[in-house]
Amino acid sequence: MAMVDESSPSALERLLEVGTDEDIQRLLLALSPPETADLLEELADGETRARVFRLILGRKQARVLRDMDAEERVELVEQLPAEETAGVLEYMKSDDAADVLQQLDEEHQQEVLDALDPEDRVEIEKVLEYPEDSAGGIMQTELVRVRAASSVRDAIEEIRRTAEDTGELHEVFVVDGEGHLVGWVKERDLILAEDATRIGAITTQVPVTVPVDMDQEEIATFVQDYDLSSVPVVDAQNHLVGRILVDDILDVIQEEADEDILRQGGSRAEELDAPTIAMAVRSRFPWLVVTFCGGILAAFIMTAAEGAIRHAGALFAFIPVIMGTGGASGTQTATVTVRSLVTGRIDTSDLMWVVLKELAVGVVMAVVTGLMLLVVVQLRGGDLLVAGIAAGALFGTIFLGTMFGVVIPLVMHRVGVDPAAATGPFVTTLNDVLGSSIIWALCLWLV
Amino acid sequence: MAMVDESSPSALERLLEVGTDEDIQRLLLALSPPETADLLEELADGETRARVFRLILGRKQARVLRDMDAEERVELVEQLPAEETAGVLEYMKSDDAADVLQQLDEEHQQEVLDALDPEDRVEIEKVLEYPEDSAGGIMQTELVRVRAASSVRDAIEEIRRTAEDTGELHEVFVVDGEGHLVGWVKERDLILAEDATRIGAITTQVPVTVPVDMDQEEIATFVQDYDLSSVPVVDAQNHLVGRILVDDILDVIQEEADEDILRQGGSRAEELDAPTIAMAVRSRFPWLVVTFCGGILAAFIMTAAEGAIRHAGALFAFIPVIMGTGGASGTQTATVTVRSLVTGRIDTSDLMWVVLKELAVGVVMAVVTGLMLLVVVQLRGGDLLVAGIAAGALFGTIFLGTMFGVVIPLVMHRVGVDPAAATGPFVTTLNDVLGSSIIWALCLWLV
Repeated sequence: MAMVDESSPSALERLLEVGTDEDIQRLLLALSPPETADLLEELADGETRARVFRLILGRKQARVLRDMDAEERVELVEQLPAEETAGVLEYMKSDDAADVLQQLDEEHQQEVLDALDPEDRVEIEKVLEYPEDSAGGIMQTELVRVRAASSVRDAIEEIRRTAEDTGELHEVFVVDGEGHLVGWVKERDLILAEDATRIGAITTQVPVTVPVDMDQEEIATFVQDYDLSSVPVVDAQNHLVGRILVDDILDVIQEEADEDILRQGGSRAEELDAPTIAMAVRSRFPWLVVTFCGGILAAFIMTAAEGAIRHAGALFAFIPVIMGTGGASGTQTATVTVRSLVTGRIDTSDLMWVVLKELAVGVVMAVVTGLMLLVVVQLRGGDLLVAGIAAGALFGTIFLGTMFGVVIPLVMHRVGVDPAAATGPFVTTLNDVLGSSIIWALCLWLV
Repeated sequence: MAMVDESSPSALERLLEVGTDEDIQRLLLALSPPETADLLEELADGETRARVFRLILGRKQARVLRDMDAEERVELVEQLPAEETAGVLEYMKSDDAADVLQQLDEEHQQEVLDALDPEDRVEIEKVLEYPEDSAGGIMQTELVRVRAASSVRDAIEEIRRTAEDTGELHEVFVVDGEGHLVGWVKERDLILAEDATRIGAITTQVPVTVPVDMDQEEIATFVQDYDLSSVPVVDAQNHLVGRILVDDILDVIQEEADEDILRQGGSRAEELDAPTIAMAVRSRFPWLVVTFCGGILAAFIMTAAEGAIRHAGALFAFIPVIMGTGGASGTQTATVTVRSLVTGRIDTSDLMWVVLKELAVGVVMAVVTGLMLLVVVQLRGGDLLVAGIAAGALFGTIFLGTMFGVVIPLVMHRVGVDPAAATGPFVTTLNDVLGSSIIWALCLWLV
């Protein structure tokens, strides 16, 4: 559906200057919550956003607030009294409300919690207890529980009672007297069952549950194998504590992809949501320093080889091709290895095969590009001895680069560090230093 | 849930040698479809896979086949007669069946289509008609349609009639006499309604529909803004032609992230699913050649500057730091710009701000690293004039690299090319050549 014309920020800005509150309300009524959220983000500051936000009707405020980007949302919430924010959060599901609260400073967060209805507060605090990127931190606690002994009619009554809070229903969870998860009943089976049917008779097994402390990235990989609309979250004693809807997993996959892609490019995902100059410099500079230090180290190694260098001055024209190609092949290997690890595609019981395969690929690439270098020099009528040394250095750099590209992520994964940090500037820099070291060693050896 | 012990390939392999078919069937009964799919993938060849596959019971075969990775699945299907494959596909939803067929060669695909039940064949051919990565190519055509004038009781009958084919239900679609989409009724509203209620009275507006030719990446970005379990797909006349379930969008996001991450690292996503040496060389080599050619070009430029070089020989130790840091900052800018474009985060109405922001970041980084270079040389007691020239080249390379990093993806996006191709080796190589050109120009100018 195309963006309707009313949703352009200029229309709203004009109304903010010359229109009445009724005009603005009329404009807002025509917009869906995501469109309204986009519109609020475009406004100049938190104060203007708060003015427009107050003109949105009751329950829709909650949807709009949830759909806004973090930065603009915080600016808006800072303009609202704690009681007003609490009133909006009460319309939200616990995971979304916890999201909003997590971004506020501690004092403000406490004020809003204090202003909440005690029952909602308990639900939200349950989610806040868990790390933001664990199953507990992204689950919603609102769901429908029934006992196996109850009837379909009882379940329908329970659904009716909780309809306001639950959002999408998808299924009713069946628990025993201690709250242990026994199974679930899908909505369709409820529709097709008779009112008097016992729930236990239409309960099916839940194909997969996740523990409350499971990392969200792991959940995403895990859940993709099953076609589910939601996954129950259980504690160590198999008590049902919440559920994660698949559309929340969408956000997780997107978030993790952002993180890995930005890290691979030498920055941080935070930059995507806060595209300011200061944030860009903060998130990119550390990586640039790593690359810079690698380059300086290479410079020192070269200067140390100065004696040797005079005998093979022509070798220096080949530095870019050796460093560039060596860096690129290391990055390729690291990218493939890391992505395979992160998405659970590497069979960790057969790591030797993974390493040997990469080394074989490295040898093929190194031999072919080494020969290409010799051919190019031959065609240009250059010095073949110099070209031979350069080709040897190219071979060594690609081979070692490939080895580091596969071994470093595997070791990081084994010791429990996220291997994604091994892609990008890290391996490239290592290869830069390696490239110059190999040239240096070859020069000294040949002098 | 941990993998059960029976699912280890060695247990199955032992049974394949010494056990009876009944033993194998008993082992398979204990496994979920995704576990069975993993197990089949581990087996040595298509023939063994076909032998085990035939021991899986009826409907479960369809689930297992759907869950297998492409390569192993094709090897398995090649071993089955067309009639047998058709029999399994009839248990699948149209989008999954189309997936399987798309991977077969044309002749084999036609044989299986001919062997299908005519009704199923029509459904699957509808999906095959559309490009694999469009809404039409990933939608399922099985869904429940009702008329606004019918009653809840009629809808329940229709749900019962189609229960075998539909998979997850989520909602019933309301259409008019010509098949135009009018709205939908969520499952919960059906549960809570009385049998005699008219469907029109509980129909709600569908918050968002996608056109049948929309690209899957666009759908993913689009759907994430709404919390939906499925999205209706409509043709140009608003006829309902299918629906896309959110768990299929999960696969799309993962697929697109794989593609972008591998491309950024200088390879192709195909490598993840077919980790062989030949595939790795095929997908990485083209990028390595790009880098190689950039390096060779830089070598030529340097050789051309040989006269100048003799006057500033010490400059060469700085080549790695200039090329490395310049390449890295270009990659950073390209990564952030591309990811922002791909995920719809860039406000394309204000491109001037995007470019100016990046250039400002570039200037900050260039000045700081340039100064760092001067300080390092000063501390080492080096030649400050040489260091000054190097710092100037560093500044120029970073600045130009940043500019290319932001402008190239924006231009590609504008002319309709996927900007993701601008990350990785492309920008790095450009910066390598640029770096050496700037040094060359500075040398000539200073001689």
